[in-house]
Amino acid sequence: MIETELGSLRRSHYSAELDSSKDGTNVTVMGWVLTVRGHGNISFVTIRDKNGDIPIVAKKGNCPDEIREKLSSLKPHSSISISGIVKASEKSPSGFEIIPSEIRVFSEVKKIPPFEPLAKTVKNIDTRLEVRPIDLRRKVLQDIFKARSQVLTSIRDYFNEQNFTEINTPKIIATATEGGAALFPIFYYNKEAFLAQSPQLYKEQLTMSFEKVFEIAPIFRAEPSRTNRHLAEAISIDLEEAFVDYNDVMNRIAEIIKISLSAVNNYVNKNPETEFIIPKMPENIPQYSYDALVEKMEKAGVKIEWGDDLYPTNLKKIGLEGFYFIKDWPLGPKPFYVKSSRSNPKLSESFDLMFGDLELSSGSTRIEKRDELEERMKNKGMKTDAFEYHLGAFDYGMPPHAGCGIGLERLIMALTGTENIRDVTFYPRDIDRLTP
Amino acid sequence: MIETELGSLRRSHYSAELDSSKDGTNVTVMGWVLTVRGHGNISFVTIRDKNGDIPIVAKKGNCPDEIREKLSSLKPHSSISISGIVKASEKSPSGFEIIPSEIRVFSEVKKIPPFEPLAKTVKNIDTRLEVRPIDLRRKVLQDIFKARSQVLTSIRDYFNEQNFTEINTPKIIATATEGGAALFPIFYYNKEAFLAQSPQLYKEQLTMSFEKVFEIAPIFRAEPSRTNRHLAEAISIDLEEAFVDYNDVMNRIAEIIKISLSAVNNYVNKNPETEFIIPKMPENIPQYSYDALVEKMEKAGVKIEWGDDLYPTNLKKIGLEGFYFIKDWPLGPKPFYVKSSRSNPKLSESFDLMFGDLELSSGSTRIEKRDELEERMKNKGMKTDAFEYHLGAFDYGMPPHAGCGIGLERLIMALTGTENIRDVTFYPRDIDRLTP
Repeated sequence: MIETELGSLRRSHYSAELDSSKDGTNVTVMGWVLTVRGHGNISFVTIRDKNGDIPIVAKKGNCPDEIREKLSSLKPHSSISISGIVKASEKSPSGFEIIPSEIRVFSEVKKIPPFEPLAKTVKNIDTRLEVRPIDLRRKVLQDIFKARSQVLTSIRDYFNEQNFTEINTPKIIATATEGGAALFPIFYYNKEAFLAQSPQLYKEQLTMSFEKVFEIAPIFRAEPSRTNRHLAEAISIDLEEAFVDYNDVMNRIAEIIKISLSAVNNYVNKNPETEFIIPKMPENIPQYSYDALVEKMEKAGVKIEWGDDLYPTNLKKIGLEGFYFIKDWPLGPKPFYVKSSRSNPKLSESFDLMFGDLELSSGSTRIEKRDELEERMKNKGMKTDAFEYHLGAFDYGMPPHAGCGIGLERLIMALTGTENIRDVTFYPRDIDRLTP
Repeated sequence: MIETELGSLRRSHYSAELDSSKDGTNVTVMGWVLTVRGHGNISFVTIRDKNGDIPIVAKKGNCPDEIREKLSSLKPHSSISISGIVKASEKSPSGFEIIPSEIRVFSEVKKIPPFEPLAKTVKNIDTRLEVRPIDLRRKVLQDIFKARSQVLTSIRDYFNEQNFTEINTPKIIATATEGGAALFPIFYYNKEAFLAQSPQLYKEQLTMSFEKVFEIAPIFRAEPSRTNRHLAEAISIDLEEAFVDYNDVMNRIAEIIKISLSAVNNYVNKNPETEFIIPKMPENIPQYSYDALVEKMEKAGVKIEWGDDLYPTNLKKIGLEGFYFIKDWPLGPKPFYVKSSRSNPKLSESFDLMFGDLELSSGSTRIEKRDELEERMKNKGMKTDAFEYHLGAFDYGMPPHAGCGIGLERLIMALTGTENIRDVTFYPRDIDRLTP
């Protein structure tokens, strides 16, 4: 065996595995220096690892002088390993401390970070994003992203229980799906191509073979807006199902919201210092038709005409909050693949899932007949030739189907009470930001 | 409630939920016409759904004439719904048949598909890829992708059990990671950007805050090669871990191979007609050093010099098969972030996981010290300025860390005995193919 730089040095315990009951145990802990205080012959150092904090106490006579001196000299964020013995201690808030006998400094920090890692808030988000790797050590972000990881797990568990097949559809595509929305162009070898703004057409096609499919993957939109709720690159939770309509999809979403909320609540129960603002889950998510909301808005004095979009400010005016659906939207502005209503062809079998004035998801029953789909495309001025790779599938028995996309970042905003979408995104991308 | 086109019509049973014990039950089944046979006054139709096949028998006098006639007229692949009564039948291989009383045709097929959906093999893969949505109905592909979905689930379960945090890193990036390999350029608003060929630098950075991270997401490489094992867009299983070295990562990979194999074996046990060629799991995955293999090759008469790559043809010559690691590669050709060996600076703490002559994964211990990293970049002729967004992180306590990326498609090839990477990819992308 070749000797590695780390050699046989490994962590024996995470912070969460240590308490006063481990008195007398030899341990090796690893992590980052959080605080250093020294009073002459004694040094108090706190190390933070992924689970929490570990107090190290180096007293003259108790541990080698050079270790005490090295510890005193360390700057916060340095990554180190400490081997030593656990000593139960009533003075320590965690009930124990470690008396170090060996130290190894992996990366010694010399600079002062641009902000305090213990800070709850840092004014300028750009200052934080520029040094995102250490920004993400802040407890509020640790909580958000660990909870996010668990929300993803429970959503996938739900899909698996319900016999959905996980799919991955191409992100490099030849044509725009929604016909005209802002796409990022790519040089694809010697051809022009685009980044997919949704897996829409592919997930529809895959209902022909797998019936129930889901994908959790990046989508790309050249959003021109500078807001707290738009990204150029986001994660979309997409589902699509054969032999159902949009009512079934709304039921699925209600289930997904329920299990996501429960994942976040579990996280908070296990990490009681978490400061999320978690919404309540209604017994049933209310469903309002577009028509009913327009009427409500008119009564509230909003200047609105049938067919207009329902803007956040107007939704606020009629006092809508928490989770709710807006359904049966006018067909006109909807993408070409959305099915029209049987009883009123001006309406569509479609819905948005809202949280207050934030749109979390958009879904619909889709058209399954080729001639109907082609007509809709032509009415929208789209070139059907460019979509032959998709239309061709409709020649071989497309089932009735419905589905939706849920914006993961916005869902996490709603579940944790986070106001800026950049705070629920590891490395946000927007019109102004391409690094880090 | 607005009336939808599907109305209240829903599937009551999947094929797998039906057998002779359901004799006399009223059911609604949905799926695709697989075969139609008619003999005057009797029609036999088989419907396929995601779980299997359902025999429909329409006899004159037994069911309305117009239903029998409609059924006889249907072409394969049409998507339909049949309501009727289950009748136990010894003549039927499945032990039952359905006597239809209602039919609804969702999409009626008029064209003859370019190949037979029951066919085990279709000669030209391009013929199949052009109509991928129906190609994916073929049993061999159904098995591959359903097993793939279950492999993904078990790998994520493993990461969760081991307290890894799921991450998503940006696919739109400002600079090339591996310094020079083929990247796809993008127009990002008014800037130049690229598609990420790996989450390498981001996952490394995230070990500073989450210690153990994983991501399963697309990667993009402008591969110029036309082979059975390269794609322009692939799914990478990436893991990265703080306070460990490449030996720990090889252990993780061994675990991942074990649980993936077990997921595939489970799938085959539940679906005994599956025709995978599943490899055996060795007790331990053997590890060969680069030096040892060069020596073996020399003895086998291969013309090779220390520092050369180990080509598939030469690996075959020394009879390596199944899963094995090649480790301790020469440092020279390795990317800038790979740590050199302590005992021999010409070597690196790196490995490849192989399956026969197919590379499934590449991993290493990474450099955690900024000055070492900068020197390596300079030696490789890279501009460190462009990487300041990454190098800056090293000022604040990068831990020792190691990780790897596993190619999901190649892993599935190995686990199922599939020879062309396009057959384990829903919609493959390569130098010649951008659609469907």
